[in-house]
Amino acid sequence: MTYNILTLKNTEKKARRGKVKTEHGIFQTLAFMPVGTSGAVKALTCDDLEECGAEIILGNTYHLYLRPGTEIIRSQGGLAHFNAWHKPTLTDSGGFQVFSLQDINKISDEGVQFQSHHDGSYHMFTPEKVMEIQHDIGADIIMAFDQCVPYPATIGEATIGVDRTFDWAKKCSNHHNTLSAMKSQQSFLFGIIQGSVYKELRTQSAEQIVSLDFPGNAIGGLSVGETKEEMEDMLAHTIKYLPAEKPRYLMGVGYPEDLLMAVSYGVDMFDCVLPTRNARTGNVFTSEGPIVYRNSEYANDERPLDPNCGCKVCRRYSRAYIRHLYNQREITGMVLATYHSTYFFQNLMKNIRIAIEESRFDEFKKEFLAKYLQHK
Amino acid sequence: MTYNILTLKNTEKKARRGKVKTEHGIFQTLAFMPVGTSGAVKALTCDDLEECGAEIILGNTYHLYLRPGTEIIRSQGGLAHFNAWHKPTLTDSGGFQVFSLQDINKISDEGVQFQSHHDGSYHMFTPEKVMEIQHDIGADIIMAFDQCVPYPATIGEATIGVDRTFDWAKKCSNHHNTLSAMKSQQSFLFGIIQGSVYKELRTQSAEQIVSLDFPGNAIGGLSVGETKEEMEDMLAHTIKYLPAEKPRYLMGVGYPEDLLMAVSYGVDMFDCVLPTRNARTGNVFTSEGPIVYRNSEYANDERPLDPNCGCKVCRRYSRAYIRHLYNQREITGMVLATYHSTYFFQNLMKNIRIAIEESRFDEFKKEFLAKYLQHK
Repeated sequence: MTYNILTLKNTEKKARRGKVKTEHGIFQTLAFMPVGTSGAVKALTCDDLEECGAEIILGNTYHLYLRPGTEIIRSQGGLAHFNAWHKPTLTDSGGFQVFSLQDINKISDEGVQFQSHHDGSYHMFTPEKVMEIQHDIGADIIMAFDQCVPYPATIGEATIGVDRTFDWAKKCSNHHNTLSAMKSQQSFLFGIIQGSVYKELRTQSAEQIVSLDFPGNAIGGLSVGETKEEMEDMLAHTIKYLPAEKPRYLMGVGYPEDLLMAVSYGVDMFDCVLPTRNARTGNVFTSEGPIVYRNSEYANDERPLDPNCGCKVCRRYSRAYIRHLYNQREITGMVLATYHSTYFFQNLMKNIRIAIEESRFDEFKKEFLAKYLQHK
Repeated sequence: MTYNILTLKNTEKKARRGKVKTEHGIFQTLAFMPVGTSGAVKALTCDDLEECGAEIILGNTYHLYLRPGTEIIRSQGGLAHFNAWHKPTLTDSGGFQVFSLQDINKISDEGVQFQSHHDGSYHMFTPEKVMEIQHDIGADIIMAFDQCVPYPATIGEATIGVDRTFDWAKKCSNHHNTLSAMKSQQSFLFGIIQGSVYKELRTQSAEQIVSLDFPGNAIGGLSVGETKEEMEDMLAHTIKYLPAEKPRYLMGVGYPEDLLMAVSYGVDMFDCVLPTRNARTGNVFTSEGPIVYRNSEYANDERPLDPNCGCKVCRRYSRAYIRHLYNQREITGMVLATYHSTYFFQNLMKNIRIAIEESRFDEFKKEFLAKYLQHK
C-alpha cells in the first residue's frame, strides 16, 4: 500500500491530509466511509455515492458472510464486481457484530461461535476464518479479527480482550500473508487496537499491534458508550503510539464534532452509520446543526434541509416535502434525506482536507463548530 | 389546452402520436404516467423520473387531500412547487380510492362520505369539493369526480354509476369553470366515462360525457377485474364515441400487452402502478417478458435485469445483486428495480411513438410481443 502524506506542514496541529492507493484506485484522506452493510449503503445507489464524493465505502463482513454468502460474492469476482462499486472498499472484521450479539455467542481463545440472526444456524469465526471470508469478499482493506469488549468493562475483561486481540492479530497476519501469496489481487490488512478506557491497556495494545507492522492501524472499542471526554482521552493517548507514515482509522466515529476532534489528533479515516441511519429515522445533519426533519415545525418549511448545502437534494426539495414523505413512510423520503446527510459528511471531509492544505484547520474547525453548535 | 396530433397518416391503424401543451410544459403522447400517490413516485426522485423519460406523472387526490392536506400544498404554491416535479402532473378524482374502500363509505347522489385510512376521521367528497381540492393541488390536468362501480356490477348498479357520473361531471364542469375564472393558472378538466361491461351503458356514458366538451376524455371503470377480452371489447366500443381531436386516456392500464392493444384503438394516455408496485415486490418487466427477480434462480445471475435495456441500472447492476438486496429488504434494491421498470415503460412508449411516426406500429407491436411473450 502506498500512503502519501500530502500535507504535514501544519505539524503543531496534528491534522493530516493524504491519499491511499489501492487496487481499486486512490482515496483521499481524510476519508469518511459510508457504511454499506450488505453491500449497499442503505437507500443509496453507487451513482449517488459517487455524486456525494465518497471514494471508499465499508462493507460488513458479518452480514455479507451470512447473505449472500462468500460463495456468491467470490464466484462473481468479488464485492466490487458484485455490488458495482468499483472504487475502494474496506470490510470490517465481523468482530463488532458478533460481540454486540453476546447472548448467542460462545467466546474462547479460538474464536467466536454465534448464531445467524436470519435462521439461527451456527457459525464459528476464528482469525483464520475471518481472513478467508474477507479474502473471498475481496475488499481493498481488510481488518484483523479483534475482541471489542462492551462498555463498561472491568480491567480484567478489557485485559482479556487486549490479549486475545493481539493473539488473533498475529494469526490474522500470518494467514493473510499465506492467502495473499496465492492470488494476484492484493488487499491490505489493518490491525485494531483495543483496551477499553484503560490507558495502560491502550498503550499495551497499541505497542503490540504496531509491532506487527500492518500497513494501517485502527483504533477500535471507542464510541461504544463511553463519554465524549473518555473517547477523546483514549484517542489522544493511543494515537501517540501509531506511526505517522501509516493511515490511522478511528472505527465507528461519529458526529461532525467528533470527526473534527479526532482529525485534530491525526486520525485519517472514519466510518459511521450516523448519517445514513439517522436520515432514515427523520434526522439529518446540516451546517447549522442536526435537525429532526420529521417534526411538525417543518410541515410548511420551504427551505431546503440545509440552506447552505449545494447537494442536489438541497437544490431541489423542501423540508416540508421531505417531512411529508417521511410521514407517509415513502422510500423516496429516505433516499433524499440519506443523500443529503451522506453529501454533508463527504463535503465536511473535503472542506477539512482543503483547510489542512491551506494550513487553516484550526480556524475552519472553530468556524464550523460555531455555526454547527449555535442552537445547542 | 392544445392537443396536436403529430401523426395520423396511418389512419387505418388508429394508433396516434401527439403532444399536449400545459402550463408546466409539453408532454408527448403516447404518454404513460408513473403514479406518484402521495406526490412522489415510490422509491424514485424527480431526477430519476426525468432520466427515465417521464414527462407527466399522476398524483392521487385522495391521498394528497388527507396528507399533507391541500392547505400545505396550496400555501407552497401548488404540487409542482411542493414536490419539485416541474413538468406536467395529472391528479385523479379520488373516486377510485373512495369506492375501493366501500365498507366505510356512504354513497348518495350528493357525493361520498368516507373515513380517513389514517385516523378514521370523516370526510365528504362532492363534485364541487373534488374540484376545489384539485384546484388547490394545482395539477395541469384534473379529473371529474366519477362513480366507478366494482366488477362485477349488475346493469342496475352500473346504470346508477353512469347516471351519477354524468350528473357529477356537469357539476364538476360548472364548478371548475367558476374556480378557473378566479385564477391565472389554468388546469384542464377531463371527463370520465363509466358503464362497466355493458355496451349500451358505455355508449350512453360516452355520449353524455362527450356532450360536455371537456378538453380530454378518459375511459374509467376498466382493469377492475374484468377479463382481458371484456376490457378490449369495451375499449373498442367506447373509443368510437370519443372525438379524435382530443386526448383519450385509459385509466389504470396496464401491462405492456394491454398498452399496445389500447394504442391500436387510439388511446393516448395511460397510468398504472404496475411497474413501480411490482418492482417493490420482486418483479420487473423486461423485453423478454416479466421476471420474478427475487427468485433463487437469479442468485448467481450476472446479467442485468434486462439484457436489452440501456437504463443506468441495467448498465451497472446484476440480477444477482438486486435479488440479494431484495432478500435483505434493502431500500436500494427497491430503488434499482423501480428505476428499471419505470424506464422500461417510458422507453416502450417512446418506441411506440417512433414506430407510429414511421408508420410501422403494427410491425413494432408484433415484434415486441413476439419477444415479450416468448416464455409464455
